[in-house]
Amino acid sequence: MMAAKPKLHYPNGRGRMESVRWVLAAAGVEFDEEFLETKEQLQKLQDGNHLLFQQVPMVEIDGMKLVQTRSILHYIAEKHRLFGKDLKERTLIDMYVEGTLDLLELIIMHPFLKPDDQQKEVVNMAQKAIIRYFPVFEKVLRDHGQRFLVGNQLSLADIILLQTILALEEKIPNILSAFPHLQEFTVKISNIPTIKKFLEPGSKKKPPPDDIYVRTVYNIFMP
Amino acid sequence: MMAAKPKLHYPNGRGRMESVRWVLAAAGVEFDEEFLETKEQLQKLQDGNHLLFQQVPMVEIDGMKLVQTRSILHYIAEKHRLFGKDLKERTLIDMYVEGTLDLLELIIMHPFLKPDDQQKEVVNMAQKAIIRYFPVFEKVLRDHGQRFLVGNQLSLADIILLQTILALEEKIPNILSAFPHLQEFTVKISNIPTIKKFLEPGSKKKPPPDDIYVRTVYNIFMP
Repeated sequence: MMAAKPKLHYPNGRGRMESVRWVLAAAGVEFDEEFLETKEQLQKLQDGNHLLFQQVPMVEIDGMKLVQTRSILHYIAEKHRLFGKDLKERTLIDMYVEGTLDLLELIIMHPFLKPDDQQKEVVNMAQKAIIRYFPVFEKVLRDHGQRFLVGNQLSLADIILLQTILALEEKIPNILSAFPHLQEFTVKISNIPTIKKFLEPGSKKKPPPDDIYVRTVYNIFMP
Repeated sequence: MMAAKPKLHYPNGRGRMESVRWVLAAAGVEFDEEFLETKEQLQKLQDGNHLLFQQVPMVEIDGMKLVQTRSILHYIAEKHRLFGKDLKERTLIDMYVEGTLDLLELIIMHPFLKPDDQQKEVVNMAQKAIIRYFPVFEKVLRDHGQRFLVGNQLSLADIILLQTILALEEKIPNILSAFPHLQEFTVKISNIPTIKKFLEPGSKKKPPPDDIYVRTVYNIFMP
């Protein structure tokens, strides 16, 4: 019997689900999506006890209903050997992912800021990226001279970092100008066949958040 | 050669390090602490490249300098067999921990709110605990009838849940009144010898945050 495809439950936009889409796509896993569009659809999932903590993202996979972004990412990464070959590599990957997710969180929340605060926040994001996060990854890549962040093979850390770099470049095109190794990393990881396909038109990658997405999210989640 | 004790770098208070103290104590691991008291001490750690993303918590352990709360917790849990016996158990533990950490985050941030907002936030925390999180764990314990949340043995999920329950009870003494299985859980987990010892006076468990702690944190971390 063929295993059912994973099914993702979330609004039709990036938000906290986009990392899950990235990791599934990078692992070469096909998936289905059930887009939340109304408060009633969320309520129905909640009433049916499909959401452990009453929240999405939720992913139906291997007979489970996984929630909490990080837990979903960890499960997929573990299953598809994207989490290192031993505890030391796993821990490095975990730290790199946690740092990158802190930066990505700023990008996820950005469209929900007041218009006046959005431009200021782009400056803040750029500073955080350039001062706190990118120098770490630039140095890692420079020092070991390999293609991937950890263990010379693709891991969750590479995938989440590439997602974050590309999302930042949409707002700040020259964000990598001082980071030659990250520029090279971006090109190389983008050319991995599964990822290359995800970056092409027609994939399940979602476009940058627009007003319709923001309004949909408010409609679904605001009391 | 005896392995060196882990050394924890953080202010002398709970914050994001308290979960790490809990898990080390539960695992029976002795540790040392280097308390940050000034901006200069933080700067020194940053300048020496001891903090991957320039932030604490940081834990020196097994020749590594671990950062990011979750990564530190995961490493210790993995090393001390507090993360389940297979991927399915690990994933349940991960989801329970992530949910509980979302609740704990509200408690961690509470002392830094404006005085006017603090009382309102206690109401919010109580509601989140009673409506979203505690019913999940109450049902898990009721349905399987075992002492621990996952796999009938102590895990990271039990430890972080107990930490969170006890911290909430300090503010809202009757928070468990509608949750008999969580009451029983609290008593039983508190009586595990390593945890019982951590709950006794003189342990490295930190007291509730007071004004001195809040001022110290502002002094160290505010630009």
